[in-house]
Amino acid sequence: MPDGASVKLLPELGIIGRVWTMMLALFLALKSKMTNFAKKAWKTGVDEPKKVIHCLKVGMGLSLVSLFYYTRPLYDGVGGNAMWAVMTVVVIFEYTVGGTLYKGFNRATATLLAGSLGVGVHWLACKSGNDGEPIILGIFVFILASAATFSRFLPEVKSRFDYGVTIFILTFSLVSVSGYRVDKLFDLAQQRLLTIAIGTSMCILISILVFPVWAGNDLHLLITRNLDKLAESVDGCISEYFNEGNAREEEEPTCKKSQSYKCVLNSKASEESLANLARWEPGHGRFGFRYPWKQYLEIGAAMRHCACCLEALSGCINSEIQAPDFIKKHLSEGCKKLSSNSTDVLKELSSIIMSMKRSSNIDSLLADMKNQSEPMHESTVDAPLMGVLPVVMVASLLIEIASRIEDVTDNVDDLAALADFKAAKDLSNDEPPVVDENENMKALQEV
Amino acid sequence: MPDGASVKLLPELGIIGRVWTMMLALFLALKSKMTNFAKKAWKTGVDEPKKVIHCLKVGMGLSLVSLFYYTRPLYDGVGGNAMWAVMTVVVIFEYTVGGTLYKGFNRATATLLAGSLGVGVHWLACKSGNDGEPIILGIFVFILASAATFSRFLPEVKSRFDYGVTIFILTFSLVSVSGYRVDKLFDLAQQRLLTIAIGTSMCILISILVFPVWAGNDLHLLITRNLDKLAESVDGCISEYFNEGNAREEEEPTCKKSQSYKCVLNSKASEESLANLARWEPGHGRFGFRYPWKQYLEIGAAMRHCACCLEALSGCINSEIQAPDFIKKHLSEGCKKLSSNSTDVLKELSSIIMSMKRSSNIDSLLADMKNQSEPMHESTVDAPLMGVLPVVMVASLLIEIASRIEDVTDNVDDLAALADFKAAKDLSNDEPPVVDENENMKALQEV
Repeated sequence: MPDGASVKLLPELGIIGRVWTMMLALFLALKSKMTNFAKKAWKTGVDEPKKVIHCLKVGMGLSLVSLFYYTRPLYDGVGGNAMWAVMTVVVIFEYTVGGTLYKGFNRATATLLAGSLGVGVHWLACKSGNDGEPIILGIFVFILASAATFSRFLPEVKSRFDYGVTIFILTFSLVSVSGYRVDKLFDLAQQRLLTIAIGTSMCILISILVFPVWAGNDLHLLITRNLDKLAESVDGCISEYFNEGNAREEEEPTCKKSQSYKCVLNSKASEESLANLARWEPGHGRFGFRYPWKQYLEIGAAMRHCACCLEALSGCINSEIQAPDFIKKHLSEGCKKLSSNSTDVLKELSSIIMSMKRSSNIDSLLADMKNQSEPMHESTVDAPLMGVLPVVMVASLLIEIASRIEDVTDNVDDLAALADFKAAKDLSNDEPPVVDENENMKALQEV
Repeated sequence: MPDGASVKLLPELGIIGRVWTMMLALFLALKSKMTNFAKKAWKTGVDEPKKVIHCLKVGMGLSLVSLFYYTRPLYDGVGGNAMWAVMTVVVIFEYTVGGTLYKGFNRATATLLAGSLGVGVHWLACKSGNDGEPIILGIFVFILASAATFSRFLPEVKSRFDYGVTIFILTFSLVSVSGYRVDKLFDLAQQRLLTIAIGTSMCILISILVFPVWAGNDLHLLITRNLDKLAESVDGCISEYFNEGNAREEEEPTCKKSQSYKCVLNSKASEESLANLARWEPGHGRFGFRYPWKQYLEIGAAMRHCACCLEALSGCINSEIQAPDFIKKHLSEGCKKLSSNSTDVLKELSSIIMSMKRSSNIDSLLADMKNQSEPMHESTVDAPLMGVLPVVMVASLLIEIASRIEDVTDNVDDLAALADFKAAKDLSNDEPPVVDENENMKALQEV
């Protein structure tokens, strides 16, 4: 059996051998998977210590609330219903203060509303005698649960009260249905409310007092960081295109820089959820109670508009058809100038938002950008025609990007007006921003 | 008091009058708000009857589960813990089958795991005597809750087991902590598991058997529809630009058509969540159990890549600098041809996915598009130079869009390979697609 040697080896191993080999392979695969997972987890923890702190806060909240079980007087005080307090802590404690407030408010209000409604319906059902009771209760549960579920499909309800509706259905069903069996219904409703209030206030206190993570602050940082990323991208793309020879050497970092607009394109969902939660937060730090968080969404949309153009630009830069070098040179200076102007405007916008102060030189930077962009069209037309297309494309897209940056500027102006940013008195003598930017940049990764 | 008349009127009204006016205004404002809300709700219901059906399903599930309360033998069977079954139905019942399965599986598994762990920890704590018990329990709750909360920050856990981790913390805390007071801990854990199993299986049965909404099917329709929208947009933009005179008359509809790429740009989040849920669904309709849902995300990403270019194109079209008509005419035919070729390819791709059959003429359509796009560069160069820029821009972006459509085609090819699409035997004699497209289009709006 000269060519069947490998086939013959298998039976030689025997069943036990084969099982052993399989188990060993399985164990090794599992081990490498676990190691990978642990490495990732460790990296997350090291990169974003705020997340680790959040976990410890949750653990602390739960340990505190379990005191209700361990301490006789507390346990008796809530009639043995301490369970609801534990439950509340588990489901309400969110990463941001806004999230915790949103869930806490929803849970408390919905429980109160549904509880009183449930007691009312129960009273009504009692009046109708023993046979009618389950029927009336069933009809009410059916109608209210259906209607409440439907309301969750409406965007207005979904964005603010989604969790509340779930709790409404839950509490109403529990109170009205279990009222059929539990005699001391009123006590039950009261105790449930009390324990939920205890759990909720504990969560809110911990999340505000112990290393708070404000959704509003995170949104603020996200937008600032995205403006910087846009600036980085514009700069990176243009210098990558026109300094191709030099860039080749350090391709990795340049490549990364010019691609950072992708973060801007992808941050819509997180911007929206942060803005949604920021509305629930009280004034904190430099942000007042009715701070115009919604305006950040407008700025974000304008930035994505910009980033889309950058996407097209980056497609051009990496396309196979390339213009000859002498033509590139012809437009190179103008494009580099415009790109550096645009970058300056974006960076200034970012520092306006970061410092929450109007800037006295944003107007001159904007004017520079416009002045640079207007004659660009002329200069592209001066270029020799054959093979000029790719460069013209890059230049035109850059001009379009500059005009979209103006939109971003308008939106930032609106924010400055709405949030009443102070004017920077003197640039040379400007006081340093209140927040340590380095720390903020770190905090950003947690968004 | 000739110019102070209006000022004098207010005090004349008196406090009661003013309060009355205010209340009337408040009532009217409330009424108009309620009417608006009701209209929106009605429109949602009429447009998307599937959502109404979902609400009725939830109502039905809750009414069914409350039978456990009304029927003595059932109630006694679960030791008076029917409450957990009601709770399970409220929190598990999701709009799609995938969502319900995801939550049901997570809830059941997490309860089982955490329940056994809780009992174990409780046994351990008992061994350490009365004084040590609460301390050991507290330490375990703190460590496990913190670790579990941390795991939610890891994307792998977040996307598949987020709900399960919450339930794990909840059950573990409840079982281990309440074990300190409740004597029949084992019975409690068992009954909780039984009631959760009852609630979960009821939800899953109802959501699969009564008018099921499959996340996978919705994703399939979303992608198909987005391909159509892209085609519509390319066509709309180009014809808007080159037939501007004619388009002016019917501006509204054209404007809408050319803007429908925006839906494609914004559908990333819903695509991802649908793909996530579709993984949990068993085979249904024409989709097997391990259908490659992830590939739809690749197609979606390629489409967004395309849509970004369309965004830039639409910016050019609406820019203030417009080329003179005679130059537009020069390029008009080539652009229109290329746009109609691109549209054909996109529509063919959409029908390939919709019918789940390979197409024999996609290759020739692709070749047409490529043949049209290659000489375009030449023809743009032939154009007279001055004022040619905006048209050249439009043409170049269109070429870029065509090349990105090729990426979409590659991704659809991959899907066809992965999902093993059948070849269409004969085009003229092709059997009609299995699904009624009209109904699907309606179903889409619910996504």
